[in-house]
Amino acid sequence: MTIRVTVWSERRQDVTDDAVRAVYPDGIHEAIAAGLRADDDFDVRTATRDDPDQGLGDAVLADTAVLTWWGHVAHDAVPDTAVDRVHARVLDGMGLIVLHSGHFSKIFKRLMGTSCDLKWREDAKRERLWVVDPSHPIADGLGESFVLEQEEMYGEHFDVPPADELVFVSWFEGGEVFRSGCTYRRGNGRVFYFRPGHETHPTYHDPNVRRVIANAARWAAGPRGARPVYGNARPSEPPR
Amino acid sequence: MTIRVTVWSERRQDVTDDAVRAVYPDGIHEAIAAGLRADDDFDVRTATRDDPDQGLGDAVLADTAVLTWWGHVAHDAVPDTAVDRVHARVLDGMGLIVLHSGHFSKIFKRLMGTSCDLKWREDAKRERLWVVDPSHPIADGLGESFVLEQEEMYGEHFDVPPADELVFVSWFEGGEVFRSGCTYRRGNGRVFYFRPGHETHPTYHDPNVRRVIANAARWAAGPRGARPVYGNARPSEPPR
Amino acid sequence: MTIRVTVWSERRQDVTDDAVRAVYPDGIHEAIAAGLRADDDFDVRTATRDDPDQGLGDAVLADTAVLTWWGHVAHDAVPDTAVDRVHARVLDGMGLIVLHSGHFSKIFKRLMGTSCDLKWREDAKRERLWVVDPSHPIADGLGESFVLEQEEMYGEHFDVPPADELVFVSWFEGGEVFRSGCTYRRGNGRVFYFRPGHETHPTYHDPNVRRVIANAARWAAGPRGARPVYGNARPSEPPR
Amino acid sequence: MTIRVTVWSERRQDVTDDAVRAVYPDGIHEAIAAGLRADDDFDVRTATRDDPDQGLGDAVLADTAVLTWWGHVAHDAVPDTAVDRVHARVLDGMGLIVLHSGHFSKIFKRLMGTSCDLKWREDAKRERLWVVDPSHPIADGLGESFVLEQEEMYGEHFDVPPADELVFVSWFEGGEVFRSGCTYRRGNGRVFYFRPGHETHPTYHDPNVRRVIANAARWAAGPRGARPVYGNARPSEPPR
Repeated sequence: MTIRVTVWSERRQDVTDDAVRAVYPDGIHEAIAAGLRADDDFDVRTATRDDPDQGLGDAVLADTAVLTWWGHVAHDAVPDTAVDRVHARVLDGMGLIVLHSGHFSKIFKRLMGTSCDLKWREDAKRERLWVVDPSHPIADGLGESFVLEQEEMYGEHFDVPPADELVFVSWFEGGEVFRSGCTYRRGNGRVFYFRPGHETHPTYHDPNVRRVIANAARWAAGPRGARPVYGNARPSEPPR
Repeated sequence: MTIRVTVWSERRQDVTDDAVRAVYPDGIHEAIAAGLRADDDFDVRTATRDDPDQGLGDAVLADTAVLTWWGHVAHDAVPDTAVDRVHARVLDGMGLIVLHSGHFSKIFKRLMGTSCDLKWREDAKRERLWVVDPSHPIADGLGESFVLEQEEMYGEHFDVPPADELVFVSWFEGGEVFRSGCTYRRGNGRVFYFRPGHETHPTYHDPNVRRVIANAARWAAGPRGARPVYGNARPSEPPR
Repeated sequence: MTIRVTVWSERRQDVTDDAVRAVYPDGIHEAIAAGLRADDDFDVRTATRDDPDQGLGDAVLADTAVLTWWGHVAHDAVPDTAVDRVHARVLDGMGLIVLHSGHFSKIFKRLMGTSCDLKWREDAKRERLWVVDPSHPIADGLGESFVLEQEEMYGEHFDVPPADELVFVSWFEGGEVFRSGCTYRRGNGRVFYFRPGHETHPTYHDPNVRRVIANAARWAAGPRGARPVYGNARPSEPPR
Repeated sequence: MTIRVTVWSERRQDVTDDAVRAVYPDGIHEAIAAGLRADDDFDVRTATRDDPDQGLGDAVLADTAVLTWWGHVAHDAVPDTAVDRVHARVLDGMGLIVLHSGHFSKIFKRLMGTSCDLKWREDAKRERLWVVDPSHPIADGLGESFVLEQEEMYGEHFDVPPADELVFVSWFEGGEVFRSGCTYRRGNGRVFYFRPGHETHPTYHDPNVRRVIANAARWAAGPRGARPVYGNARPSEPPR
């Protein structure tokens, strides 16, 4: 059974900025989607802020098993009502993969409960991502580490809750480290944060990055338990 | 060095409801504060929604190492600006102890990122709390389990993130269980959720409950690391 | 692709004890295996202490994706060399599902590093298992809770490391609770401990229990990362 | 109340190897002990393999709140009976701080349940340790990161269970990262693994390293719950 993935992007710098368009002529979302489309497990569509309801309407979300999120300069332009809908769908069981600068998106901050702040530096140097949990399905098909020749640096402290599962830790040439692959469970849903993806670098064309996103989508779409019933409850066991 | 604790309460049912006033004639906050005042480690003050800035002004928070929170029917009456202040102080290093019906407070939901919903039943039956992590300082001085003869039931599923540390699990006569003592780290701060405390029961007069709250205040006030610096950063190591 | 499951049992009380044979005439292992055989995802074989190398030889283990373990009165009769082999295979990536009294098996104690002790009582009363993590695939297809009409009681404190993921918490009529479904990652392998399964009760004929074991086998067999290389290593990045 | 710390060392290379003696003329244990003795919270003694019962007799352990462990070339010379005693005392509530090459000690492998293997390289280059959990008391008094100018490299994958709390992540000049400060709870006890400390480098004279070890000793000695009772148990609640 194929997994219904919606690749969402704010669709801004890849329209307005020549340097970004040079790397992602069809938009960042299309590069992410292309990686997933190469994998038979997925049925992929894209959505952006230019679509009705910012691409985050009820019908789209209801038909989405896993949502991937890329945003950077337009976080505030996503209306709170759209954030409310995505939040509710995650708690309801949807998977969410938050990429790179999405750490500062409203939805990620809402789900984490922290500032989600970090250190950064746009110096286009090497990042090496190490697998620190080889038992995790998100590491399937990767080597022990892999390199991105040019990436923006993100450094600790990364102000998120401790990951439920820490899958990757990044090394940067400038002396920094970063918890680059973090899983979180929220309600019936699952969230994966993945660090790489700066808009001026060809990160989403990289086969290892594509592999991680596909693995994460499979992990986030996995089966799960029944939706709990909340509220006033009669005794589960007969009275004594 | 004494720990500065502020005991906050919405101060509503213990004013308006005779059944609650019978149990807590001076207010729920005064019962919680009395338990802490009996312990030399603490310098205790109380604050309620009747105080300036809802008792949550910058000066109070800046002078608070640990804030305890009791609220039930007036969560929405706490202004978002007050929630913003408390949230910022937690990330900045303040300890926060959220009690019972505070699970639905704005500040707890903000810090958890989930609905914080649960099952409940006001049947005034027995609750037995089991220590599931005897290595934890919050269990100091308790037996393996302790009983509250009359409490409201809270049952799973409790829609919070997996606890960083699970200290207590409750058993209820009606067949339910509940993760009753949960720690969370958020930024430089520490959060402890503790389940008992229904307003019509003498829970905050109970010596074991008082012990847990005192232990939790010590744990939440513990030393911690430096406040991180976020934002654009120069390399930590010299360039190659 | 089917998942190769080996159902292992010490095969002792279900041979010697009439009360156990009445419930499991073909052996406990055959009841567990029957549950898995009803699911097309699995290719199931059984192994017991009566087989060569206690059923735990290198060839069997090498051809096993997930091993389920039932033992009770003969833990010490499993040779340390067999435990060494299973331990190595778990770190190498095999899944391991430890059932009920297997908490005291050599292999579980080896993997946990603790005493794995607990409280118990053979009173054949009700157990109710609550799903506390509905996002987990091991809860797939279950309700919010399910009941076993007659089971041995296991109570806290359960001396295991904090679970990486806590899936079930049990309620017992006698006032006890228990962390009944715990996942652990060890090396490239994954371990699931599942509490129910006393030899005098028809637990392994129960459809919910069978569902949990099948779900756990799928979870434990999931894809994972490359086997790490250890030891003396050349620099991963060129010298400065 | 002072905390009784026993600083244990295998006492081998700092006797036989001139290069080690040049850095630690009184032994590695004395350098570690000197750091702790400068702090009024501790009552410090040392113990080595040259002492009766390898320095790990019942009387010593019974009178030890926190044991620090340094070993490297003589792990196998510690008798299993001594390991059994230390293991039992940890589960009973003793704190244990395992340093550097102690990752391969029998006691650490016993408590972790994994191979505890890793990558290493003796190239005497820079290590930078980043605080990834500023809420943790073990980070008290440190900056966001600190540097050791010359250290042996340890690189991922580090084959330990996921840390209960991850406090430090190291960056190495050769491109590696390492989870350098990991806490674990085992029974009533607490374990902290801290990476730095190669015998040919003056690591244990470093003020930040001494600070971490002192913080960890305070954390590991913290109050805890009652020792659980295990075994056959009568009902906690009256029968229905």
